[in-house]
Amino acid sequence: MPKLPNWADYIHHDSSELFLSDIAPRIGNVIEARIRAPVVADLRAVYLRSRPDGEWKRIRMEKSSTVGACDWWTAELPITMRHNNYCFKFLTSSQSFYFNQLGLSPIDSPDWFNFTVLGDYDAPAWVREQIFYQIFPERFDNGDPSNDRQTGEPTLSGRPALQRAWGELPRPFAESGNVEYFGGDLSGIRQRLDHLTELGVTAVYLNPIFAAESNHFYIIRDFDQVEACLGGGEALRELREAMTARGLKLILDFTPNHIGFHHPWYLAAKADPASESADYFCRDPVTGEFETWLGIPVLLKLNYRSQKLRGRIYRDEDSPIRKWLRPPYSIDGWRLDVANMTGNFRSSQLDHEVWREMRAAIKAENSQAYMMGEYFQDGSAHLQGDELDASMNYQGFNTPVRRWLGRGDLGVDQNEAFGDPVPLPTESLALQWRQYLTAIPYVIALQQFNQIGSHDTSRALRVTSGDRAMLKAGTALLMGFPGAPCIYYADEIGMDGGPDPDNRRCMPWERSQWDHDLFRYHQRLIAIRRGSHALQQGGFQLLHAAGDLIVFQRQSRQEQMIVAVWRGDDDMPPVELDAVKADIPDGSRLRDLLTGDEYHVEKGALALAGLAHGGALFLRVDA
Amino acid sequence: MPKLPNWADYIHHDSSELFLSDIAPRIGNVIEARIRAPVVADLRAVYLRSRPDGEWKRIRMEKSSTVGACDWWTAELPITMRHNNYCFKFLTSSQSFYFNQLGLSPIDSPDWFNFTVLGDYDAPAWVREQIFYQIFPERFDNGDPSNDRQTGEPTLSGRPALQRAWGELPRPFAESGNVEYFGGDLSGIRQRLDHLTELGVTAVYLNPIFAAESNHFYIIRDFDQVEACLGGGEALRELREAMTARGLKLILDFTPNHIGFHHPWYLAAKADPASESADYFCRDPVTGEFETWLGIPVLLKLNYRSQKLRGRIYRDEDSPIRKWLRPPYSIDGWRLDVANMTGNFRSSQLDHEVWREMRAAIKAENSQAYMMGEYFQDGSAHLQGDELDASMNYQGFNTPVRRWLGRGDLGVDQNEAFGDPVPLPTESLALQWRQYLTAIPYVIALQQFNQIGSHDTSRALRVTSGDRAMLKAGTALLMGFPGAPCIYYADEIGMDGGPDPDNRRCMPWERSQWDHDLFRYHQRLIAIRRGSHALQQGGFQLLHAAGDLIVFQRQSRQEQMIVAVWRGDDDMPPVELDAVKADIPDGSRLRDLLTGDEYHVEKGALALAGLAHGGALFLRVDA
Repeated sequence: MPKLPNWADYIHHDSSELFLSDIAPRIGNVIEARIRAPVVADLRAVYLRSRPDGEWKRIRMEKSSTVGACDWWTAELPITMRHNNYCFKFLTSSQSFYFNQLGLSPIDSPDWFNFTVLGDYDAPAWVREQIFYQIFPERFDNGDPSNDRQTGEPTLSGRPALQRAWGELPRPFAESGNVEYFGGDLSGIRQRLDHLTELGVTAVYLNPIFAAESNHFYIIRDFDQVEACLGGGEALRELREAMTARGLKLILDFTPNHIGFHHPWYLAAKADPASESADYFCRDPVTGEFETWLGIPVLLKLNYRSQKLRGRIYRDEDSPIRKWLRPPYSIDGWRLDVANMTGNFRSSQLDHEVWREMRAAIKAENSQAYMMGEYFQDGSAHLQGDELDASMNYQGFNTPVRRWLGRGDLGVDQNEAFGDPVPLPTESLALQWRQYLTAIPYVIALQQFNQIGSHDTSRALRVTSGDRAMLKAGTALLMGFPGAPCIYYADEIGMDGGPDPDNRRCMPWERSQWDHDLFRYHQRLIAIRRGSHALQQGGFQLLHAAGDLIVFQRQSRQEQMIVAVWRGDDDMPPVELDAVKADIPDGSRLRDLLTGDEYHVEKGALALAGLAHGGALFLRVDA
Repeated sequence: MPKLPNWADYIHHDSSELFLSDIAPRIGNVIEARIRAPVVADLRAVYLRSRPDGEWKRIRMEKSSTVGACDWWTAELPITMRHNNYCFKFLTSSQSFYFNQLGLSPIDSPDWFNFTVLGDYDAPAWVREQIFYQIFPERFDNGDPSNDRQTGEPTLSGRPALQRAWGELPRPFAESGNVEYFGGDLSGIRQRLDHLTELGVTAVYLNPIFAAESNHFYIIRDFDQVEACLGGGEALRELREAMTARGLKLILDFTPNHIGFHHPWYLAAKADPASESADYFCRDPVTGEFETWLGIPVLLKLNYRSQKLRGRIYRDEDSPIRKWLRPPYSIDGWRLDVANMTGNFRSSQLDHEVWREMRAAIKAENSQAYMMGEYFQDGSAHLQGDELDASMNYQGFNTPVRRWLGRGDLGVDQNEAFGDPVPLPTESLALQWRQYLTAIPYVIALQQFNQIGSHDTSRALRVTSGDRAMLKAGTALLMGFPGAPCIYYADEIGMDGGPDPDNRRCMPWERSQWDHDLFRYHQRLIAIRRGSHALQQGGFQLLHAAGDLIVFQRQSRQEQMIVAVWRGDDDMPPVELDAVKADIPDGSRLRDLLTGDEYHVEKGALALAGLAHGGALFLRVDA
């Protein structure tokens, strides 16, 4: 790598509100762009370079102010298109540099590395302020025993249902066939909203609740009905009403990639090649056989080459994607299952087209609806403003954080042979964060759906091999990172569990079974996050990533906050952070929002200390 | 950056024929993929990871052979889609790594970094074997004085034409109005084909030759006529015939972004808002005024929202994009001017759509036609297999090489204030090459249109401040790099010249004015390139980039070649290359194709020496 000047790390810009006067401007507007650069760089000139209509436009920036050790350079940036790519060029007396999302660079990198501000993008801005809580409906609480599935009741899978007692352990699919039921339902969730309020979360993501086979309800039979054993449509209406009364948001889970083997569309297509739904399904071009999802015979892959299917899924007025967004359900958005494969089948890769059309349908119902897709893989191609608002951000947050936290289970891939022998180096965590942040516009990053656990991965506590301090460390990263944090139900009380379905155990309501220290820690972190403008709206700047310590800054127009997390086995030795890099002048006082401890900046340094294994600091710079 | 093992650089794969059994496979085929990794890495397992239909597929690779210090790992890769993204995962006993186009990485990077093999891509494979020669038609030779523009002849620009004597210097636009004419024409080119043959080039790119204003003929008046003062259609037919007889390819220059102010479409639109061509032009949404290209009033921006315009440009049977591809002209492809802006106007960015449609039109005429667009900027978004076959590769080759070669003029941007004070560090040249190669499929890289000078930039010799050794160094890089080299006419005989129009001086045919040493050097390099399977078809691996020395390897199934270029002021001190990295076993003999000197590999090292300022080595590994 080429050498960079020693002040390279002192420069900062991101496409957040501190540096752009509008992070989601309309086309035709002119916004102000700013960048922070050290006085010692002795810059001859600074240019903002954009690419309106594909041609470079270089705008000379003005030094608008000097604060502490840094100058602020400013220029007007006309927003002329949907996707506005920009970077900066610095001229010193002896060299020239570019500045893009991966930092100062001696070369003019491909546009991929540059910053992006979206024009005419309808950001669901409310998402930035949320703390989500993911509930697996069958395992949260049994609010209405009258709708419980009974032992011996026939199920469509051919195996009779088995009623299990609350709190017993789920058995592997090979033993249970996923037709064991613990009785959790929507009424149970409604009756437990006090728990959510007490914890402090503000929004709920529910795994599927539509009429479906199996206890996870992903084998959809009818998108238009709420599953009877969850309480049906009336229970959803009541839940929605109760949540609205508390100001809680609600998003549901939709499976656009496939449907279950007893869905009437499939039954008709199978029975009659001339049926209307005959072309709703992908088929092997040679054998003509129905294509299944990853070879699972009960899940039939939908064929988006069919215009009729597109109508039935999202175009028609009464399509499920649209109707659940309307009263009385008025859900606030969709989590789209297996988004990574939706619309794709061999030579026909329709993903971009399907998301664009589905976006139009969703936003026609509610321009503020949240459209979030599941991507264990890189989803950034679909996060450019005209498709999804966010991804279930495994690669950008979840997976590298889990690899950093532990050495046990490492994500959805339970294959030992493919696993990672040792925890991820801290430098690597930082690198993966940066690369995935670089891949998307920052306004999207603020909406990403971040987790440290979900129904598809072992419990976070399993990843840390039961180390609760490390679970706290992961939760601190979750609350500090750009994007909407989501807590997987019962992580807050220290639930353990291995791979699916052991990660879907019943929520224990006997408080004696809770880890109260962990619960209080979650409460405090959530309160910090909810009270912090910087954590919700601020930019992102890495300050330190080495050894077992990672430190980053979130800065908004109203607030400046430093987040530090320590994973070392012993107490952290004293570490001096470079305060110039963080733009914190000498004499500044910082307060840790967790302990109330005060920190000071002297001689350009911020001395950190006091962190035990798994500990975190949330240092707010006091004005 | 995270630390990597010391054998990290020993691993190599690129999407070239040495590592893929087919670099342009059909969808449905299964190809073999290979990767080279050092024995010392002691790998526990190697996986090839692809993403069919968006889902990861991990294929365990087999160790198929061990050659010297390296193992070769092999797996089958089914080609299921147009755009097949893949990377590798390595497991050692203590760590896991990914391998993508930027090398070994501790993290799973975004797809952008990974390799790509295109399915069902009709590669114009002949391009890899070409040496292009760019001719500015008005300045090559006057073959037919009867068609010369005469002094005093009226021109449409309002200023009378001025006939200049061959060899006089072009005057700046402010003085000449670009209506001074030296008499060069197509007949002149035809009569000078011996020069091209003697030099060894195999293909010609002509700047525009259609009926147009000004001596550069970019202000198009009629796409269907060849400019009269160039000899008209008959002269083109004769030129084509003479070139075909010599086996020379021919590509022409088309301006899809704008047309001239005397084109009938514009005259009609201006005169009558109800005319058929009224919507062919972009207009300011507020004032209704016609939009011009970068404010140049004689160039009117075309509006691709108009379906009729799309018909007239490329859809209709008799559209110019199609008809010149047919006999008797049968051109071999198009260079598309201002490709970076074509189709783009404010909120309407139709670039992707226009290129996809134009590609279909061009390939319908000739599936092997070459479709190449001008991009001073990053054009990689359009180089993914379904739009352009190549770009005029300023960012991926031309610009960084010119920045590395010199400290004078630094590209099209003549603005001193924006220029670079010092030459580019060698590490930076290597970084820019790698990043832009990473941005596109390798099969496209082999077709990129590379230059060290063009009609839009100062002469390469001006960049090197007249240093002919450095011009040679640049030419060696040009011949060594993946992609089709193009020599700008008269660079081979050492022509000097500053910014446009001084870079468009008349070709001197008095041989006493030539730099014969330079001409012979070009001949030898061209002969090496034409005789080298590795330089035409091989992969690309950086071996050394530090100080003033850059070394890279091109390797095909038939040949292994190392290219080294030295820009130091003094003779190069001895340098030892790591031969294991280059996969060259001890005892191997290499021969420099320029001098015939022999080199040996001993104890894993290849000792380089003997390079004077601007010198190059083309070392072929002898079997």
